[in-house]
Amino acid sequence: MKDLNEKAAQNLAAIRAQKPLIHNITNYVVMNYTANALLAMGVSPVMAHAQNEVEDMVSFAGALVLNIGTLTDDWVTSMIKAGRKASEQQTPIILDPVGSGATPLRTAAAKKIIDQTRVSVIRGNASEILSLRHAESKTKGVDSIHSVEEAAKTATVLAQELNTTLAITGPVDLITDGSRVIRVSNGHPLMGYVTGTGCTATATIGAFLAVDDDPLSATATALAYFGLAGEVAGRNATAPGSFMIQMIDALYTITPQDLKEGCKIDED
Amino acid sequence: MKDLNEKAAQNLAAIRAQKPLIHNITNYVVMNYTANALLAMGVSPVMAHAQNEVEDMVSFAGALVLNIGTLTDDWVTSMIKAGRKASEQQTPIILDPVGSGATPLRTAAAKKIIDQTRVSVIRGNASEILSLRHAESKTKGVDSIHSVEEAAKTATVLAQELNTTLAITGPVDLITDGSRVIRVSNGHPLMGYVTGTGCTATATIGAFLAVDDDPLSATATALAYFGLAGEVAGRNATAPGSFMIQMIDALYTITPQDLKEGCKIDED
Amino acid sequence: MKDLNEKAAQNLAAIRAQKPLIHNITNYVVMNYTANALLAMGVSPVMAHAQNEVEDMVSFAGALVLNIGTLTDDWVTSMIKAGRKASEQQTPIILDPVGSGATPLRTAAAKKIIDQTRVSVIRGNASEILSLRHAESKTKGVDSIHSVEEAAKTATVLAQELNTTLAITGPVDLITDGSRVIRVSNGHPLMGYVTGTGCTATATIGAFLAVDDDPLSATATALAYFGLAGEVAGRNATAPGSFMIQMIDALYTITPQDLKEGCKIDED
Repeated sequence: MKDLNEKAAQNLAAIRAQKPLIHNITNYVVMNYTANALLAMGVSPVMAHAQNEVEDMVSFAGALVLNIGTLTDDWVTSMIKAGRKASEQQTPIILDPVGSGATPLRTAAAKKIIDQTRVSVIRGNASEILSLRHAESKTKGVDSIHSVEEAAKTATVLAQELNTTLAITGPVDLITDGSRVIRVSNGHPLMGYVTGTGCTATATIGAFLAVDDDPLSATATALAYFGLAGEVAGRNATAPGSFMIQMIDALYTITPQDLKEGCKIDED
Repeated sequence: MKDLNEKAAQNLAAIRAQKPLIHNITNYVVMNYTANALLAMGVSPVMAHAQNEVEDMVSFAGALVLNIGTLTDDWVTSMIKAGRKASEQQTPIILDPVGSGATPLRTAAAKKIIDQTRVSVIRGNASEILSLRHAESKTKGVDSIHSVEEAAKTATVLAQELNTTLAITGPVDLITDGSRVIRVSNGHPLMGYVTGTGCTATATIGAFLAVDDDPLSATATALAYFGLAGEVAGRNATAPGSFMIQMIDALYTITPQDLKEGCKIDED
Repeated sequence: MKDLNEKAAQNLAAIRAQKPLIHNITNYVVMNYTANALLAMGVSPVMAHAQNEVEDMVSFAGALVLNIGTLTDDWVTSMIKAGRKASEQQTPIILDPVGSGATPLRTAAAKKIIDQTRVSVIRGNASEILSLRHAESKTKGVDSIHSVEEAAKTATVLAQELNTTLAITGPVDLITDGSRVIRVSNGHPLMGYVTGTGCTATATIGAFLAVDDDPLSATATALAYFGLAGEVAGRNATAPGSFMIQMIDALYTITPQDLKEGCKIDED
């Protein structure tokens, strides 16, 4: 898709030029890696979670990243406070519903955030995303999906139901806003051996949302960029320790032109 | 010990095949490194600490890792909740009593966890382990131990008193279930210059407990594997930054056959 | 400044010989990197924040590092408890007022810590440091400073008002105790692309305070050492992932003699 390759380059150039502040309320495991990834790509990251501070902090932000990886009720309350303020200000919000579907606390927290704030994008794996269906949903469960066509149809219906953009990441990422469906096939198998690559992909989408008004193209181009960093890292590393360091390096060294040429984005 | 070298290889192969879920309630400092080490070795790590979630999460786990490195009372309550559920389900628990003996809070927390849950293995340094004695203990204090023979005898008595397997790690690791005493001499001096190597050794034992019913052999083979990763890293790195990355790489690249040949395990 | 170059070498040698315990109550994002940096330089780091433990823990420490990067009210209470105990025992305290001036919570927390404990050194960027002025301060705001001479004068007045040593870090670091003004020009541009380099510079000053009674020389020599590690890293790395690992390596490999020769310290 020539248009989106061009858009990816523009978005990355805009991030490097504007250095948007991205407010993250995320999990303990990935905070350091996510902050380093955002710095490497040219973003100004901030992590702040106190209930009596998040509204002040998010008011400066270009996007808000919410991630329930090591949630407690107190942190979810902070996420909703920040999310409501962001919603008021039309600041884009991206949610990473880590482990939604695995425990009742996670599923309930993800749904509460979606209900009480205006989430622009949700990124997760297939089972996390499908756990977000309402009781009366028309979407199918994970076990009943037998082909990539069915997956796309299910995601499209769910994006309409939730009125948001969904990114289901995997070997090929599927992104839909309920009408268009885009696939991104950048990436590298070692990404699955580094903790926080999913969470950091989410934060990267946050950065792209700060410079691109269209959630669909922001998400697709961010995932292409992040996946391309994995590909570049995979040329220089064969094991996950070296790979995770090379990914940070790649996020820094990839130019808009590299991204334009390296994007693997297709529209259904 | 030919038997345990063989067992080490079997355990590592089983981890890679089964990819057990290991539930960690651990400290902030090491969460990222521990998660990356577990992923590299083939495990599926999860960090979750909310009091209203830990019982749900541990019910999926192959082992539970409890680590009091950055404890508060709330986190200890979560550890005990998770530990009781794990005990009911016969899921193995490993405790890392970080800093026990250094402050009253830590010593009390470690003892409370031991009293209220069924801990299969405790790993720490000599002073941490000896701080766990009951008031009426027959075991000697750290200062009164003047030889490796005395250390082994003291550890054996304490393992009987606590009815668990103890791993006292150092240049040579000493493991005892109260009857047998095993020593593991794999390792590298730079491991002492990387934060969380002790904590991550504990998590590695957790992974091996998920595939090996005998806490003594699970612990010995896990420590041999982790120490061998240090040796491999030490061939490629001479300073702690590079070393910690090479260790993650080594946990990924070491094969069961490498481990069988590289284990340095002896029984007294 | 020959004297301070000599002092830098002495301080580093003393740290390596004495391995002081440095108690950190710091933010989640940098805990791992800070602990690894302190270990690499020869320090024994401890992270502990429970309100019912911090007084016990700080009583063993050679210095206390307070950092409000991911503050909540509870953590600030712990910082003040630890800080009061440290003040009583004449244990040096260094404060990193991360984001002070950006939100009311941060500014108030930093001021409360300064009011209620005996802080030896405060390290931050120019806007963080200037946010610490009292209402009746004679010091100028950031926007009204138009030259390096004005910056030095403003910092000197503020150090007198706060009765502490200030370190304003940037491409050239400015350190003043209210009478003397010292500049350190070690460093590398990639340090700005790694999260926690500022926070870890603060912890490094903590380590130097544990072996050097003069806050001014401890701070200047610590910043020269940390900046030199950046320079050494910059010879081996051209992107931030590799750079952050090389910095840990450099903190380990730099000798007192290297530091004596590499310091770029000047007194106004």
